Amino acid sequence: MSILVVGSVALDSVETPFGVRDRVLGGSATYFATSASFFTDVNLVAVVGEDFPEEHTRFLSSRNIDLTGLSRVPGETFHWKGRYGYDLNEAQTLETHLNVFESFKPVIPAAYADAQYLILANIDPELQMEVLNQVKSPRVVACDTMNFWISSKPEALKKVISRVDFLIINEGEARQLSGEANLVKAARAIIGLGVKNLIVKRGEYGVLMFNGNSVFAAPAFPLEQVFDPTGAGDTFAGGFMGYLANTGNLSDEGIRQAIIFGSVMASFNVEDFSLERLKTLSYPEIEARYRSFKNMTHFQGVGEL
Amino acid sequence: MSILVVGSVALDSVETPFGVRDRVLGGSATYFATSASFFTDVNLVAVVGEDFPEEHTRFLSSRNIDLTGLSRVPGETFHWKGRYGYDLNEAQTLETHLNVFESFKPVIPAAYADAQYLILANIDPELQMEVLNQVKSPRVVACDTMNFWISSKPEALKKVISRVDFLIINEGEARQLSGEANLVKAARAIIGLGVKNLIVKRGEYGVLMFNGNSVFAAPAFPLEQVFDPTGAGDTFAGGFMGYLANTGNLSDEGIRQAIIFGSVMASFNVEDFSLERLKTLSYPEIEARYRSFKNMTHFQGVGEL
Repeated sequence: MSILVVGSVALDSVETPFGVRDRVLGGSATYFATSASFFTDVNLVAVVGEDFPEEHTRFLSSRNIDLTGLSRVPGETFHWKGRYGYDLNEAQTLETHLNVFESFKPVIPAAYADAQYLILANIDPELQMEVLNQVKSPRVVACDTMNFWISSKPEALKKVISRVDFLIINEGEARQLSGEANLVKAARAIIGLGVKNLIVKRGEYGVLMFNGNSVFAAPAFPLEQVFDPTGAGDTFAGGFMGYLANTGNLSDEGIRQAIIFGSVMASFNVEDFSLERLKTLSYPEIEARYRSFKNMTHFQGVGEL
Repeated sequence: MSILVVGSVALDSVETPFGVRDRVLGGSATYFATSASFFTDVNLVAVVGEDFPEEHTRFLSSRNIDLTGLSRVPGETFHWKGRYGYDLNEAQTLETHLNVFESFKPVIPAAYADAQYLILANIDPELQMEVLNQVKSPRVVACDTMNFWISSKPEALKKVISRVDFLIINEGEARQLSGEANLVKAARAIIGLGVKNLIVKRGEYGVLMFNGNSVFAAPAFPLEQVFDPTGAGDTFAGGFMGYLANTGNLSDEGIRQAIIFGSVMASFNVEDFSLERLKTLSYPEIEARYRSFKNMTHFQGVGEL
């Protein structure tokens, strides 16, 4: 089953201890769509400016990402400039130029209106709601957000959250959204808002998934070189939803596998700048790293002792 | 097989956001021995002063901890005073009074000299080496240390490390000891010092184990209430070594199970102040939480998909 992604396509300028890249391909929807494209077909709704290089649209098309919903409008593409120190967990934003993204009003092409799998990447929650209202009856909706929306539009955000199956946010955002310092209490409060499953991203420490019945803990893959963490969360979400859309298995077991595939994709993405690593990645490499995750976390149960 | 523990027995004064306790039972060897006592017999070598309450020795004896090696000498017991904020990961030390611990020279009773399982809790690495030299041919040695010894006695510490099977330290200590910010590189450098296995404690994020062949990642148990993290690392090490000594299974699988049992013990210990939770803990509760760890981390392998 194909996935519909709504979010940002950007040109990023990134500085890490390992190098500098200027105006390279970025944006939440870009990372999400490319990662998901390893598992299923993807339809992208986003906006770029006249400066957006043709090579990037060619790359996205080469990944079987349908660009019917990618509008190109007068003006410049969303531009983000950031820096990471040796602690690669947190970006320092140096510049944000919304440009054409400032007046982005996502219009879902008629052909996408019956999308079954929908990801609302990090955009204004009022726009996320407009998208939700344009998609007839999605089977699975996942949603991301950020500290800015949690503080500036909490009510609009909570309405969106009450309608989604998976809220995928980081640890600090979970605490901010719930007002609870303890993560278990934060998770309970957020589930109380109506979302079915909460996935908490913890950077190099992995992911925790909470729902009414169970908790699942997945580590991050210990990497010797993290070149650029930009887009890791979106790449995770892309692998996660891509695998769910591929299998249609929404059981607890299916969701857990999807979380590992998401973690696998994120672990590859941070090995190089921008989407460079995903450009060379093959499915056998993905399966091999999934096996490494299995080896890394396996231990015998009490009954097997 | 019994375990020999050498380390500190202390009286702690602790303040957390959830309460205050004055001069309660503490010390690395105390937590270690009590935790290990759920799995095997324990022999304790440590020192206390004349002020050490009889109720504490009665408690330790009640756990089948042999106190032949616990000397009671003139003076006051080692006293630590610390405080935790809402971020319970890091203690702020307010006072440290070494007292009788300052002139502690561990003498291993003759009956313990053929100990097979030895834990060198966090003491001066020169004393750790003296202990190593008094124990004839231990099968398994585990060792802890702290930032103070890494910076003040790095050479003595490295000699100890080259002779142990398990170095159990926290993430910051691993980085400090190796001079590497990246944990995978830090682990390789530390394994290069001659230790067979490195266990990196990451507080609420769990544990990573590195050796020449494999990496194992274990999460921490997500708890709704963490009352007092004091002794969590020693309680982990106690459960870990206690289980190894109980089973004698030093295979990769056996070590992984031991890491989970250690994590189980630590997760209980932080639920109350001092050793209060361990005082009421039962083995069925330990097994039940081991099962919860299994449930929390399980997912199907690629071959099972």
